Amino acid sequence: MYTGPLRSLIDELGRMPGIGPKSAQRIAFYLLKAPLEDVTRLSNAIVVMKERTTLCSICFNISEGGGLCDVCDDAQRDGSILCIVEDPRDIVAVERTHRFKGRYHVLHGALNPLEGVGPDQLKIAELMERVGNEPIAEVILCTNPNLEGEATAMYLAKLLSRTDVSVTRIASGLPVGGDLEYADELTLGRALDGRTDLTTVRDGSTTI
Amino acid sequence: MYTGPLRSLIDELGRMPGIGPKSAQRIAFYLLKAPLEDVTRLSNAIVVMKERTTLCSICFNISEGGGLCDVCDDAQRDGSILCIVEDPRDIVAVERTHRFKGRYHVLHGALNPLEGVGPDQLKIAELMERVGNEPIAEVILCTNPNLEGEATAMYLAKLLSRTDVSVTRIASGLPVGGDLEYADELTLGRALDGRTDLTTVRDGSTTI
Repeated sequence: MYTGPLRSLIDELGRMPGIGPKSAQRIAFYLLKAPLEDVTRLSNAIVVMKERTTLCSICFNISEGGGLCDVCDDAQRDGSILCIVEDPRDIVAVERTHRFKGRYHVLHGALNPLEGVGPDQLKIAELMERVGNEPIAEVILCTNPNLEGEATAMYLAKLLSRTDVSVTRIASGLPVGGDLEYADELTLGRALDGRTDLTTVRDGSTTI
Repeated sequence: MYTGPLRSLIDELGRMPGIGPKSAQRIAFYLLKAPLEDVTRLSNAIVVMKERTTLCSICFNISEGGGLCDVCDDAQRDGSILCIVEDPRDIVAVERTHRFKGRYHVLHGALNPLEGVGPDQLKIAELMERVGNEPIAEVILCTNPNLEGEATAMYLAKLLSRTDVSVTRIASGLPVGGDLEYADELTLGRALDGRTDLTTVRDGSTTI
């Protein structure tokens, strides 16, 4: 129904994740009515982000203009403990807990043979190099608790067992505020497996 | 948590209607990983749309590069019947029915005194001028069936009663495929008010 430049914009917007045809239309019309400077700012923000955002040469987190990322650039962070995540967004999630003061390593994906993602497509060789060169004592496998994330964690655990770092995996269990009645059996099973002894339990909010 | 150009882009995306912080993040990361040409195409589409999309000088529908819109440019369309809508998107909705062969007039809004939208903020003077100059026999008030749209329709009906065009309003009633049980009382009331005599009913799918 729409033609010309408006149609092109709706098509381009519709390619974004989570934006269907209706949302794309709504956004296009919003932009049509928005002041020119707002629209220019959006268009520039896209180009500038693409030009300036790079990956940290140490941990492959996102960084700006080719430099190190904020975490690697921070001398206060504990270099002896390394948190392995799938995606830079996972770093933001972990940082939000304010409980982790170590450093990160971003794999940029998880093992997924069906989609052609093997160890060579992930930053695993780079991880092993870091483990060999940096004074790392513990590696926390913080991949997603789904099929691909678990497989990746198992693979890394095996690979890292040849080194002398200690390898841990984040706990699976019921989410805080959750409800036993609505928990799926896998999660509840994991929660049972991972039960902690309350007589020896550590303080609830240690920072590592 | 995010900084620099990525943060700026997430902020800009978050201003779009229907895009919350999570969606903005997801889209920003999608763009970060997308090929440069795809991202450039989006950024250009925004700028080109903004530069090239104008309003039709007759009906204020969207048009391209300062020309007339597709409908006004089409000599086949019936100039004696005018459909009044609030927004260019409403034209697309009416066109999709394939039942209307007349022309349009876009008000660009509806009366809304609380938000400072009075008759002077809408293309009402331009409508009255068209009614005076063009061979218009019927005006269909096709504003939304909500408070503002109804008020606008009532206002226009009063204004147009001084001219000799016939003024009609689109029907309110139950949506096709709807369910009496779930209909709100206003809609069902309107459906009763607007009941049609089946002994004299017109063919169900006339084109006007």
